[in-house]
Amino acid sequence: MKKKSVKLGVFLAGTGHHVASWRHPNAIPNAAMNVDYFKGLAQTAEKGLFDLLFLADSLSVAKDSHPNILSRFEPLTLLSYLAAETSNIGLVATASTTYEEPFHVARKFASLDHISSGRAGWNVVTTSLSSTAENFNKSEHLEHSLRYKRATEFVEVAKKLWDSWEADTLRIDKKSGQFLDESKFHEINHKGEFFSVKGPLNISQSPQVHPVIVQAGSSGDGQALAAKHAEIVFTAQENQTDAISFYHELKSQMIALGREKESMSIMPGLFPIVGQTEKEAQEKYEALQELIIPEMGLAILGRYFENMDFSSIPLDTPFADISLPDNVDSIRSKYDLIVKRATNENLTLRQTYQWVAGSRGHHIAIGTPTQIADKIENWVMSEAADGFNIMPALLPDSLTDFVEQVVPELQSKGIFRTEYESTTLRGNLGLVKPENQFINKP
Amino acid sequence: MKKKSVKLGVFLAGTGHHVASWRHPNAIPNAAMNVDYFKGLAQTAEKGLFDLLFLADSLSVAKDSHPNILSRFEPLTLLSYLAAETSNIGLVATASTTYEEPFHVARKFASLDHISSGRAGWNVVTTSLSSTAENFNKSEHLEHSLRYKRATEFVEVAKKLWDSWEADTLRIDKKSGQFLDESKFHEINHKGEFFSVKGPLNISQSPQVHPVIVQAGSSGDGQALAAKHAEIVFTAQENQTDAISFYHELKSQMIALGREKESMSIMPGLFPIVGQTEKEAQEKYEALQELIIPEMGLAILGRYFENMDFSSIPLDTPFADISLPDNVDSIRSKYDLIVKRATNENLTLRQTYQWVAGSRGHHIAIGTPTQIADKIENWVMSEAADGFNIMPALLPDSLTDFVEQVVPELQSKGIFRTEYESTTLRGNLGLVKPENQFINKP
Repeated sequence: MKKKSVKLGVFLAGTGHHVASWRHPNAIPNAAMNVDYFKGLAQTAEKGLFDLLFLADSLSVAKDSHPNILSRFEPLTLLSYLAAETSNIGLVATASTTYEEPFHVARKFASLDHISSGRAGWNVVTTSLSSTAENFNKSEHLEHSLRYKRATEFVEVAKKLWDSWEADTLRIDKKSGQFLDESKFHEINHKGEFFSVKGPLNISQSPQVHPVIVQAGSSGDGQALAAKHAEIVFTAQENQTDAISFYHELKSQMIALGREKESMSIMPGLFPIVGQTEKEAQEKYEALQELIIPEMGLAILGRYFENMDFSSIPLDTPFADISLPDNVDSIRSKYDLIVKRATNENLTLRQTYQWVAGSRGHHIAIGTPTQIADKIENWVMSEAADGFNIMPALLPDSLTDFVEQVVPELQSKGIFRTEYESTTLRGNLGLVKPENQFINKP
Repeated sequence: MKKKSVKLGVFLAGTGHHVASWRHPNAIPNAAMNVDYFKGLAQTAEKGLFDLLFLADSLSVAKDSHPNILSRFEPLTLLSYLAAETSNIGLVATASTTYEEPFHVARKFASLDHISSGRAGWNVVTTSLSSTAENFNKSEHLEHSLRYKRATEFVEVAKKLWDSWEADTLRIDKKSGQFLDESKFHEINHKGEFFSVKGPLNISQSPQVHPVIVQAGSSGDGQALAAKHAEIVFTAQENQTDAISFYHELKSQMIALGREKESMSIMPGLFPIVGQTEKEAQEKYEALQELIIPEMGLAILGRYFENMDFSSIPLDTPFADISLPDNVDSIRSKYDLIVKRATNENLTLRQTYQWVAGSRGHHIAIGTPTQIADKIENWVMSEAADGFNIMPALLPDSLTDFVEQVVPELQSKGIFRTEYESTTLRGNLGLVKPENQFINKP
């Protein structure tokens, strides 16, 4: 039987995903706004035959933001630039359904798909930060379930717009002066709860027909949207058992809607720290952990405990001895997880914030290239994942380590490509081209 | 006295600006969606030391659109791609103040400005097509004067957002863990008639501080907006006399607002047809004119006469013999101009539509490189223009002709650069960096 092939994405973010990466001696100051640096990262990831690179986004900024995200490029412009500097890697950008219009979003992803010859992907987000409303003439942020209703209709409108041109709508005939086959050019005339859009789109069908749809929400509403539309799902899973149950739950929902199991790749975040020996890997990790500024680490920890102020408590206090708030509305599972591990492993307050702030809820893999490749294989073969969205702790170092050391291990196991199968993201992911919903309709 | 230096832009559009360019044997089919082709055009323009390249835009499409604009790239994505393939030429994109939000627009132009190391420009438009509303959940298009009120506030909000970061707001200090000078990071707290935006922007100050502001409206409202904010004005002027009066009128309005005369470049469209001899140039022009499909030419002519249907009239009828509608609400000046010239020169209906459809209201210059360079010099020295937005009739041919034949003539006259003065658009245009309105404010 042919072995399952691992999908790999890389989530790019300034100096890396470790909260203190920017303080590391190898970190480049202002990396987040350095376009040559991003070019280098994209080319390294392409050398490593990654399926895609991914950019997160937000539409507001606060003074206490991490330096990686305080200032950032607008994702579609950065990816269009990177399209010129790469040739095979998928280019996935985040765009909000709450603060954008379907016509603009459908158009710009189709444009990126044309520019990159079929490498665009759209990470559909509903924007969780309520402060965003104040940048967009709104006094209140839309509540969670309405955001997801709007998102679902938004994606449907975008797909209609992408279908408003069939493959051969434009047929330039210099001699006759004809250039358009009107029967293949469709108004969409969408009228829904949130949107009224006439169409057609002002850009022809792009190489992938629809840019690849990516989704990262893990709530019930988020999973329902993913089951219906997502072709890639990013998720945070701290352990394999939880990952397996999430995987099966989501694939079942998708299959119940009539979709093929292979039409979606589930890719948890993975935070790898690679060393030639376990000891070297552990030392690399600890060097980063030591750089976490206590106030920042305590503030991140506090978020899971109703913004509790830990700052007056001595850092060597056992976490289990600290009196915590009883009522926690948000992210109860995370609260329980932290308390359980801190108690079981007898962690101090310092060790607890270092762990929580460092990992950001994603699975950390610290070890040799073989150990990390084994873990990836094990998760994929056990259906905990179809692949991973790699979150390099420190950039570019952690990405380079992964490409030079882990990728060859995966290749020698026969579970990762040795060359790109395709020049399109759909082609590399093994996804089919969507069917046009307007074919043979007026 | 130092000679005034000519500013040059190139307005890129698929196969070129002549309405029948797409039917020319040298035209590349589907040029409008060919990213390599645009790369070639941008590089040719940069070889010709143009100040900028310019992309128009629209947010809706009709079946009777010209093949160049039926499908087109989203401008910011295309220019970000071209930023990677060029190094000095300015990159000017059109974006609508009627169908966009200031936060998105300010952000993406700042991002392009970072990506291109200071070459971004924003052509501010209010969108004249009422059909656009139907693509954006609106039943009615905003009327003209409200569109301009909104545009004025929109530009003000964008400038505030660009000023929300001072030059050295981000100061990464790995050792102390400090990275932000909060005194230089400003909420804008804008509350106006159309917009309420808190800020700050989520991207740091870009190399030009403000991307260059471009404007092309020639109505009273359009001129008022330009006088206040525009650093480049694109305009359609069919003859030098009209151009001189427009130039002086607009510069006076600007000076009355306290701006320096040199802080705005007025660049009329110029539609050059270059030949080694006058005869060759004339033949090139006529070869294009012959390709105009009569129905299309008559429909374009009809727009200036209340959509009058000319199609049943024999094409050899003298235009002066045709009975025209009396009452014309729109573009009365254009109506008079057409009738006057057609009568004076005894043009037939065919000659009239060929002239009107071919030129699209811009000044045509048909001749040898020396003749065209003389005309450019004459217009600029007589203050009819500060330079021109070149509208190549047929691409890439007309642009190549201009770069290889006209640019050297301008250089030998000493009125055009022989190398770029700067790597930024502001630098090449001789514009100063704007002052930050929030400096020394909380």
